[in-house]
Amino acid sequence: MQDVKVAVAGFGGVGRATAKLLLERRERYRAVHGADVRLVAVCGSRAGLFDADGLEADRLDALEDGLTGPDFVATSGADILIEAGPTDIRTGGPGLAYLTAALSEGRDTIAISKGALVHSGRPLRELARRSGALLKMSGAAAAALPTIDLVQHSLLGCTVLKVEGILNATTNFLLDAMTQRGLDFAEALREAQAKGFAEADPRNDTQGWDTAAKLLILANFGLGLDIALDDVTVTGIEGVTRADLEGWARDGVAPRLVGSLVCEGDAMRAEVGIRTYRADDPFALVSGKNKAIRIVTDAMGETLAIGAGTEPLATAAAALKDLEHILIARAGGRTASTMESIL
Amino acid sequence: MQDVKVAVAGFGGVGRATAKLLLERRERYRAVHGADVRLVAVCGSRAGLFDADGLEADRLDALEDGLTGPDFVATSGADILIEAGPTDIRTGGPGLAYLTAALSEGRDTIAISKGALVHSGRPLRELARRSGALLKMSGAAAAALPTIDLVQHSLLGCTVLKVEGILNATTNFLLDAMTQRGLDFAEALREAQAKGFAEADPRNDTQGWDTAAKLLILANFGLGLDIALDDVTVTGIEGVTRADLEGWARDGVAPRLVGSLVCEGDAMRAEVGIRTYRADDPFALVSGKNKAIRIVTDAMGETLAIGAGTEPLATAAAALKDLEHILIARAGGRTASTMESIL
Repeated sequence: MQDVKVAVAGFGGVGRATAKLLLERRERYRAVHGADVRLVAVCGSRAGLFDADGLEADRLDALEDGLTGPDFVATSGADILIEAGPTDIRTGGPGLAYLTAALSEGRDTIAISKGALVHSGRPLRELARRSGALLKMSGAAAAALPTIDLVQHSLLGCTVLKVEGILNATTNFLLDAMTQRGLDFAEALREAQAKGFAEADPRNDTQGWDTAAKLLILANFGLGLDIALDDVTVTGIEGVTRADLEGWARDGVAPRLVGSLVCEGDAMRAEVGIRTYRADDPFALVSGKNKAIRIVTDAMGETLAIGAGTEPLATAAAALKDLEHILIARAGGRTASTMESIL
Repeated sequence: MQDVKVAVAGFGGVGRATAKLLLERRERYRAVHGADVRLVAVCGSRAGLFDADGLEADRLDALEDGLTGPDFVATSGADILIEAGPTDIRTGGPGLAYLTAALSEGRDTIAISKGALVHSGRPLRELARRSGALLKMSGAAAAALPTIDLVQHSLLGCTVLKVEGILNATTNFLLDAMTQRGLDFAEALREAQAKGFAEADPRNDTQGWDTAAKLLILANFGLGLDIALDDVTVTGIEGVTRADLEGWARDGVAPRLVGSLVCEGDAMRAEVGIRTYRADDPFALVSGKNKAIRIVTDAMGETLAIGAGTEPLATAAAALKDLEHILIARAGGRTASTMESIL
């Protein structure tokens, strides 16, 4: 039996959902991976909990002040860190210090927040390479929608020629409201904010930065590129006019905010902006909370995925998918075949 | 540098395409996986070739009589077998003897033909479990469309509640011709045969057996179920009437031949038959050579994939994706993180 200690840093809705789901799946980890997975530490920005024997779900509401920070994680003896703090793509956010410390110390790491990955992608990859730690990030790259999985697993061996993705649900909601019910941007935004689909400061979504962040994570960590946020041409949906809406209706096309990667010579160019799709393109059907990605490769043609899932459960499940891939790697990479016979 | 010897058994269009693509990718295997991959043996039903130093592409047109069979593969010293022979789901076909021998001897194995997997799924899994050999089969389970990948990798950890798949291109073509151009089944079939989209004896496709075979492979090898072909309720498209076509047109729905798995108590029931989809369902847009799968899980909601690719290249690429996953496992499962920095 493999003994595996996990810490969760960042303990808002997603961090808590991840900890809870991990505890629910302990029996699975024993049966499928031969791993005794213990949650030894959790922490938010000011408080946390530690128990070397493993925390249980009923204790997670009473955090103790001061138990927080990268040193707290290191002291907990965790083998694996799950980082779920608030995202700040301009500074890296609190996740940056957690990821930097964990990867430096050779701790396998699962990132859920996007900030550090977007801000410091290259140094984090370099740290992981040097220490041999695994760095996974399914929860940060469109969560339940497989994106990095597709290029690194399902299309492994193929050369990626083109990527386009509908990666942000808020802009889906706004564009739907504008095209289907004739609202202008300001009206659609007020409605989305009233219903809780858009934040009080919605610019991260509406100006395209959330889409750009997910695109960058896929490009840099999935495809091994080295694109900085400043290299991405980002246009959001705030500038959509009545004339645009009328034109799209007349042409029978659906607008979507899309992040895309296109080959330009030997490099790939990254771009975020509105593209329109005819009714016979599956992208025209991707609305509401759904996200989608289309990847074109040399040998497998076009592969398209559409997915969503209820949050925060879906993001927690994405992070814990990463955890199982780490368990397989820690067991020497051959667990997969054993798994087939156990499942 | 890892030294890896590969044999390809079954040397029709797909086997040849796989051998050719493998030779083209040798430099990639060195750079990404640190593996010197040599093609040491190929064989069809009556003839083959062997070279311990590795065969080159220009020699693959001059096979030598008698060099064939499971013993030939064993004698070649291959570490990995790729099996691409003709499919016979009722007997297992020639692939059965190749897979049985290879897995018994602990050789990692990649199946492309479906016959043996459908006919003898349980004993083959048991052989692999006992010898520790890996058994992969992306090329047999809808090739470029990720199916087993989704449940075993992208949705790992989740409980699969429902699966439905459009897994056969010939029936797509026939249903399109019938619904969009008003042909009856016999007319559509004659046209498909004339254009090379349907075989002279089309029953494997039109009666739903090809769909059933792919569904079974996903169920048994992807989900760890134990369903026999006789347990699957299989209805094809031969019985479609003018009245059906008129009803579908009236209702504005698109018919697709679908293989599905549905929870029934603790078990899953497998079924192949026509289902209809409204215009706002992506399945309604899956036509021509495209295939599609929709998987519903407890924690990640609904995940849908659509894919195709030009044959036989796409199937060859699917088999060689399996090869790279085997290379990663043989290297101890941690190559994936190194790969990120090399790509």
